[in-house]
Amino acid sequence: MEELKKAVYEANMLLPKYGLVTFTWGNVSQIDRSTGYFAIKPSGVDYDKLTPEDMVIMDLNGNKIEGKYNPSSDTPTHVELYKAFPNIGGIVHTHSSWATSWAQAGRGIPCYGTTHADYMYGEIPCVRCLTKEEIDGAYEKNTGLLIAEYFQDRDYEAVPAVLCKNHGPFTWGKDGHEAVHNAVVLEEVAKMAARCETINPQVQPAPQELQDKHYYRKHGANAYYGQK
Amino acid sequence: MEELKKAVYEANMLLPKYGLVTFTWGNVSQIDRSTGYFAIKPSGVDYDKLTPEDMVIMDLNGNKIEGKYNPSSDTPTHVELYKAFPNIGGIVHTHSSWATSWAQAGRGIPCYGTTHADYMYGEIPCVRCLTKEEIDGAYEKNTGLLIAEYFQDRDYEAVPAVLCKNHGPFTWGKDGHEAVHNAVVLEEVAKMAARCETINPQVQPAPQELQDKHYYRKHGANAYYGQK
Amino acid sequence: MEELKKAVYEANMLLPKYGLVTFTWGNVSQIDRSTGYFAIKPSGVDYDKLTPEDMVIMDLNGNKIEGKYNPSSDTPTHVELYKAFPNIGGIVHTHSSWATSWAQAGRGIPCYGTTHADYMYGEIPCVRCLTKEEIDGAYEKNTGLLIAEYFQDRDYEAVPAVLCKNHGPFTWGKDGHEAVHNAVVLEEVAKMAARCETINPQVQPAPQELQDKHYYRKHGANAYYGQK
Amino acid sequence: MEELKKAVYEANMLLPKYGLVTFTWGNVSQIDRSTGYFAIKPSGVDYDKLTPEDMVIMDLNGNKIEGKYNPSSDTPTHVELYKAFPNIGGIVHTHSSWATSWAQAGRGIPCYGTTHADYMYGEIPCVRCLTKEEIDGAYEKNTGLLIAEYFQDRDYEAVPAVLCKNHGPFTWGKDGHEAVHNAVVLEEVAKMAARCETINPQVQPAPQELQDKHYYRKHGANAYYGQK
Repeated sequence: MEELKKAVYEANMLLPKYGLVTFTWGNVSQIDRSTGYFAIKPSGVDYDKLTPEDMVIMDLNGNKIEGKYNPSSDTPTHVELYKAFPNIGGIVHTHSSWATSWAQAGRGIPCYGTTHADYMYGEIPCVRCLTKEEIDGAYEKNTGLLIAEYFQDRDYEAVPAVLCKNHGPFTWGKDGHEAVHNAVVLEEVAKMAARCETINPQVQPAPQELQDKHYYRKHGANAYYGQK
Repeated sequence: MEELKKAVYEANMLLPKYGLVTFTWGNVSQIDRSTGYFAIKPSGVDYDKLTPEDMVIMDLNGNKIEGKYNPSSDTPTHVELYKAFPNIGGIVHTHSSWATSWAQAGRGIPCYGTTHADYMYGEIPCVRCLTKEEIDGAYEKNTGLLIAEYFQDRDYEAVPAVLCKNHGPFTWGKDGHEAVHNAVVLEEVAKMAARCETINPQVQPAPQELQDKHYYRKHGANAYYGQK
Repeated sequence: MEELKKAVYEANMLLPKYGLVTFTWGNVSQIDRSTGYFAIKPSGVDYDKLTPEDMVIMDLNGNKIEGKYNPSSDTPTHVELYKAFPNIGGIVHTHSSWATSWAQAGRGIPCYGTTHADYMYGEIPCVRCLTKEEIDGAYEKNTGLLIAEYFQDRDYEAVPAVLCKNHGPFTWGKDGHEAVHNAVVLEEVAKMAARCETINPQVQPAPQELQDKHYYRKHGANAYYGQK
Repeated sequence: MEELKKAVYEANMLLPKYGLVTFTWGNVSQIDRSTGYFAIKPSGVDYDKLTPEDMVIMDLNGNKIEGKYNPSSDTPTHVELYKAFPNIGGIVHTHSSWATSWAQAGRGIPCYGTTHADYMYGEIPCVRCLTKEEIDGAYEKNTGLLIAEYFQDRDYEAVPAVLCKNHGPFTWGKDGHEAVHNAVVLEEVAKMAARCETINPQVQPAPQELQDKHYYRKHGANAYYGQK
């Protein structure tokens, strides 16, 4: 559990390092699938005052197991994603500027090039706004359920990111660190896609065969990028 | 009074830290409501030469109570805002780049998402330019009066920011520190709103129920964000 | 002369500090009107290797008086500006990103707000491209002559900046330091004007009376900004 | 060979210094034409863990001569460029944000000003996407062949940069360091060209005589910029 808190602390501290958060607008969690416990950033605590001990341990029923602080207010979203996506081990939420601009615009991010295709297979979706009933009810839980529903018949490992309309992005990965990595990729991809549309308003997504090539160069049985 | 000067000095030093000022283009004040005195940055003094002792103490009649320097030339605006908004304790003025771009464009900033709604309830208004008479007269005082007039029948605590057309933003809060916090929020929100309109020129404001949810998640009797 | 070299060295080092230069793409000079000598950055020398001793001393006939290096290739432009503008003491040339984007676009920068009006009175002009004859001849000298001609019947002290079409900006001031200050103002103003036009494509310049107010609040007999 | 590895290591470390890479998204190589060996960054190794010893030595048949790591997955592209461009000594590939945005937009970068003309003669081309057959085959090698084919009847020394559609830029130079320098120029030029088109959608390329002037001021027998 100390190890989990340390890992989640370190992953959280990467958010300001990569310029993905202003103030406390972001959080990382990581789960230990053997116990079903996950650690998450406390709510509204400044990054420069954060310590590993401040991380809050939760279970997948939303009960606090350990920690002096309240967990992030987005905790119920994390719970639903861990329940729906059995192969993931870490989740990130931020209000990073470019990804949030796309979320506010209500548009998914088309795959315009290999930077995107290297990590995410196809368009990064923007899920609809919650209804008034969903918002007035268990808002954060419903956010998780909506994302889970969207990916019900889609490959959440191939597209480890989503935009929530009028809100911002969630990303995930095999652990908190990889989820942060995907949050950085998403922000970079969101920035270049917006600029690319300004440079050429008629731009089309990259050809499917190029997307396939780059994605599978890094993923799956025939991957040959890196040192494996 | 020493404490007040120190608090105002520290709040002023946050402006360059958060990238909100170039040269001397900004100022923070904070008021002690028990005495009616407020401390404010001196006019045109470089941030890297500023000390707590340089802060100027003023009263709400615009008289200098203490200090070797002239107060910020925007002091009469601060005076009018303190008189009109009894619940505030701090005021910030900057020429921060994105907020000023909206002010120059003469447009209020629509609420496109939860980052905005978390701190500011509804559109951030852009008040009209002053008339020739108002400009040629007591310009800075009239700037304050115009803002006060705009908020006469509106909730200045729920919308702690305003854009002055062809000029730039003012923000406020319970003290100087919170006013700076709101200035950072405003700049971030202004940036994302501009990008969001480029990504989707037909974008509409976030649904009212989502704005309500996020605002009241952080404000009022039923708030549940953070550690309270 | 040592003092002049030191002042020019320090002013040059402000260019990378304020993010106005990439590599060696900029230069500052300052003149001693009593001798008619001016010091200028050597051509193509890296900023992080520069020392005060490297500055080159020139006279207004373009003769090198002292220095082991060649002066900036833009030296003949500086000469013409010093000859045409008797009240200036320093000149800056950069390829700073936003100002150069306006220069490439071939447009002057309208005065959209008080940030601009505080330092520069009215539109910052973009002078025409040189003709083939002017380019093939004494190109750098002709650049200076063109700027001088533009300002022949205009107030070069009230508008201490110009854009050269398809090239970049020159700014000036009472000394090298003030010329750098104006280069920073220009870049900030150029950035906000571009963003402002994106936010509101129908935007109009700030009302004349507001431009007057801010400019004369800082300049001339009735100025009241700052500590004088 | 140690010297080569050191030079390539240092050139690679300039990429994060100049903000051209996120994570491991870039690589520099440099060739020793006397042996035909070149050194290149290993694939997928973090920049902050890189040492000179980690550089991989390759020959122009694509055989690894020395090194514990796999070379960059883009190595076959480098091989083809070294074979096609006998006068170059260094190559850079990045996914730098502005250049990649143009590549994704599928547009070459017009020469809008002297910043561009100082280093690159005319439009920076964007070569077509590879066909499905070229992608499914020897993708990285075919990328190099396509670039080589484009420059078959063009001057690759006068235009030391290319954009690969839906992918990103390659630049080259007399060694790795100059290739990095050109990558920085390209990014700056790409940024200003995009902004310039936003400021003036009808903008035209700089007059040919101005492009000639600036290019030949720095290149060829009559160059007079700098200290030579």
